[in-house]
Amino acid sequence: MAPPPTIAFDVNETLSDLSPLDARFEDVGAPASLRATWFASVLRDGNALTIAGTPRPFADVARAVLDDLWTRQGGAMADPRAATEHVMAGFAELPVHPDVVPGVRALAEAGHPLVTLSNGASEVARSLLGRAGVGDLFRTFLSVEDVGVWKPSKRAYNHAATVCEVNPRELVLVAVHPWDVHGARRAGLRAVWLDRGAASYPPVFDRPDITVRALPDLVDALR
Amino acid sequence: MAPPPTIAFDVNETLSDLSPLDARFEDVGAPASLRATWFASVLRDGNALTIAGTPRPFADVARAVLDDLWTRQGGAMADPRAATEHVMAGFAELPVHPDVVPGVRALAEAGHPLVTLSNGASEVARSLLGRAGVGDLFRTFLSVEDVGVWKPSKRAYNHAATVCEVNPRELVLVAVHPWDVHGARRAGLRAVWLDRGAASYPPVFDRPDITVRALPDLVDALR
Repeated sequence: MAPPPTIAFDVNETLSDLSPLDARFEDVGAPASLRATWFASVLRDGNALTIAGTPRPFADVARAVLDDLWTRQGGAMADPRAATEHVMAGFAELPVHPDVVPGVRALAEAGHPLVTLSNGASEVARSLLGRAGVGDLFRTFLSVEDVGVWKPSKRAYNHAATVCEVNPRELVLVAVHPWDVHGARRAGLRAVWLDRGAASYPPVFDRPDITVRALPDLVDALR
Repeated sequence: MAPPPTIAFDVNETLSDLSPLDARFEDVGAPASLRATWFASVLRDGNALTIAGTPRPFADVARAVLDDLWTRQGGAMADPRAATEHVMAGFAELPVHPDVVPGVRALAEAGHPLVTLSNGASEVARSLLGRAGVGDLFRTFLSVEDVGVWKPSKRAYNHAATVCEVNPRELVLVAVHPWDVHGARRAGLRAVWLDRGAASYPPVFDRPDITVRALPDLVDALR
């Protein structure tokens, strides 16, 4: 029998719940709805920089987009630099989604080696899972910053396979974002779409190998 | 003296004013603020598909993101497919920004060959500028769909230079989006940032060669 495959988790939104950042947008006088525009724009610009061959760290792009969004808000923002730092500071306090701790524990008990693979910094993932009390169940916290391209570049996924010392086909990516599922599949990994909201899967992306509604369901799905 | 350089215009938001789409979001029961999230997400996903080596037409990505956003709205959307088509139909009626017609006329009179270079379909640009009464001032309407990558891929800009029969350095891209300015510069073009809102330029992107607040100002800036 093959050993349980290694699992690489996306981090932002897949493990972490970004919704507490809504209050931080409101704290600085911006609508909570701006959070979704901001996060999509960060990925837009991070991807654009990867395409142009000039990738930048996630936090740099995230700050640049916030600064830009404040100028488009129209109203007077007393201290835009402080507003940006107030939102960014929220990353250090984010919780994980309710299904993460039981899911991670069950997958670890089933023998799956666990890692993270984020477009953000390794330290954000390490801190997030440490606060949740499951950091010691992960072998390592990988960032695309070690590779010089953002996901969904094939090189980002292959980097994870190399570090985990497995073939791409023996690595399973777990993500809430269809573009991440698509990139992993194109790089030869297996991919799990974690669909907490019963959304429809966009037809422009390759379909996942497995879809689960909550992380604990993945134990049986991979058996 | 060198002849006036060829100018390649980005189309969505640079020439067209997308704000009338806000009312179409409200028509289908969504907040007008969703337009910004949608447009950023379209570029996020289009870029992701380019990175993964599997580009898709702009309209396909735009529809897929709308379908996805409706499922996240929570409320009951009676007919999501019809809602998507109602928003997409708005592209056929968009106006140009007020500075576009005088700017395009002045640049044509100064002897600049003019083209468009869009991540969207050629027909959208042709129709937009035709409705504005300046379509005949353009030599051609280029789309990245002819190349198989989205901007800001170097290949998209080089394609425009090839079609225009000029060296990249003799081609001037005009865009409101800093990521487009960045990509054009990295491909060896000159790049103009059209900054209608007096925004700050994000530090993660290469700076433009020229910044103007309105298109008619570009005639003198290029002289």
